[in-house]
Amino acid sequence: MSDKDDYTPPKVWKWNAENGGEWAKINRPISGATHDKTLPVGDNPIQLYSLATPNGVKVTIMLEELLALGHTGAEYDAYTISIGEGQQFGSGFVDINPNSKIPALVDRSTETPTKIFESGAILLYLAEKFGALIPQDASKRTECLSWLFWQMGSAPYLGGGFGHFYSYAPVKIEYCIDRFTMEVKRQLDVLDKQLADKKYICGDEYTIADIAIWPWYGALILNKVYGAAEFLEAHTYTHVLRWANDIAAREAVKRGKIVNKTWGELDQQLHERHHASDFDEKTQDKLESSN
Amino acid sequence: MSDKDDYTPPKVWKWNAENGGEWAKINRPISGATHDKTLPVGDNPIQLYSLATPNGVKVTIMLEELLALGHTGAEYDAYTISIGEGQQFGSGFVDINPNSKIPALVDRSTETPTKIFESGAILLYLAEKFGALIPQDASKRTECLSWLFWQMGSAPYLGGGFGHFYSYAPVKIEYCIDRFTMEVKRQLDVLDKQLADKKYICGDEYTIADIAIWPWYGALILNKVYGAAEFLEAHTYTHVLRWANDIAAREAVKRGKIVNKTWGELDQQLHERHHASDFDEKTQDKLESSN
Repeated sequence: MSDKDDYTPPKVWKWNAENGGEWAKINRPISGATHDKTLPVGDNPIQLYSLATPNGVKVTIMLEELLALGHTGAEYDAYTISIGEGQQFGSGFVDINPNSKIPALVDRSTETPTKIFESGAILLYLAEKFGALIPQDASKRTECLSWLFWQMGSAPYLGGGFGHFYSYAPVKIEYCIDRFTMEVKRQLDVLDKQLADKKYICGDEYTIADIAIWPWYGALILNKVYGAAEFLEAHTYTHVLRWANDIAAREAVKRGKIVNKTWGELDQQLHERHHASDFDEKTQDKLESSN
Repeated sequence: MSDKDDYTPPKVWKWNAENGGEWAKINRPISGATHDKTLPVGDNPIQLYSLATPNGVKVTIMLEELLALGHTGAEYDAYTISIGEGQQFGSGFVDINPNSKIPALVDRSTETPTKIFESGAILLYLAEKFGALIPQDASKRTECLSWLFWQMGSAPYLGGGFGHFYSYAPVKIEYCIDRFTMEVKRQLDVLDKQLADKKYICGDEYTIADIAIWPWYGALILNKVYGAAEFLEAHTYTHVLRWANDIAAREAVKRGKIVNKTWGELDQQLHERHHASDFDEKTQDKLESSN
């Protein structure tokens, strides 16, 4: 491997399976199932196959918020997909999401089961299904969707760009760290200006825009991912910080963020979720301690 | 600038305005308007402020497809935003899109003008407004939205990742080219498998999923961007190639892709669009020649 500037790409790229850093073993230039694997199915209407990465947490927070609002149709079984072990390449998972990325969801309450992938699509599907956490006013709904799509198009620069080159890549490359740091700081500044005079992203109403953005930019600013708060001067984004702390204090958020989590403190890991009582052994004090 | 592997990031990142390659002058770590600039407004219901990049072309193709279907409410004025000159930082543009990225759209047919940003949000807004180019069947609609969001979350690895490091970055860094090439080839393989037994992304119906995906992955496979077809072995993705050529042959696509274009052949540039007749001087033969 070379990261020197005397590199000339070949005419035709060849896969070198040894390149790619910490995630090389799960990154492949081809798609599709690598092995047969039927997924488990529980008794609840919603079946979720996921992991507590920021994209996964969006959906578990959404489901917990819906349940907190009394939408019992949002009861769900959540199963962990260990991406480090390649479970996203099992045939059952690929059948739901041919892109082999978590989260993937099946709604079994419809006439034929509805498969959905991409966290943004899942948030929108659930918001429309339950008529919740998305503005009813047409103009506000449009604004909410602009921000939902903003998150989907922006976070790859945070996760696949900044996070990768600052934290995960096997070498520290100044050009890449500079490139993605500049973009992430710009994104944080966009959010900071948006939140300067608003409680939530779209105003007074907590919506799927907040639920999509918080697991990425809230985690970043609260120093829960990448250990980059000082590097990025997180404390200067005061409105984002206020908003991030407000959302972190929500009970549904405290529940949602531990579902399908397989790292960190043991009392902050709920590998499978089938019923509200599954959270009981994670005592309130312990949930509080994770803020 | 260093891209050597002996680099240690500082405690706190500082902006070096000279880093960033060809696009350094328009990439900034802060957001917001840099200058006062009122945007022009035409007589049509839809006002579009854009540039014929893949994200811009999504929307002009969508509008031309809607007009081809007879939706006169989709008549639009399109104005060019020159991102190389920083026009996306003018106050009028930032008022529509605080993220300072093209495309941005205003619908003046609503009681108060509706502002929309993010190409995916614009496609969904227009599809819902006109009840067109999105499946009416609930299950098919959900599938279409999964693929629309797939495009939004995937293309940053193509444009901001592969395209940047393969074509635009001032140095060729093997690690980065490998990383993003692997991901783009995986994405192409996802599409190739999806299109193996389908005419369009979601089946027989041409939808906003195709309109979102084609300007990026169609352009890549047809070697219209980055000059990377040989490097990526584009010819091996036979189903994507067939689909890309099918869509390139659509009249609305031929029109849409030259709107707000400011580079290439002069007869393939329509800097402003206000009426269908604006395309007349671009003769059919010349439009044909661009395929």
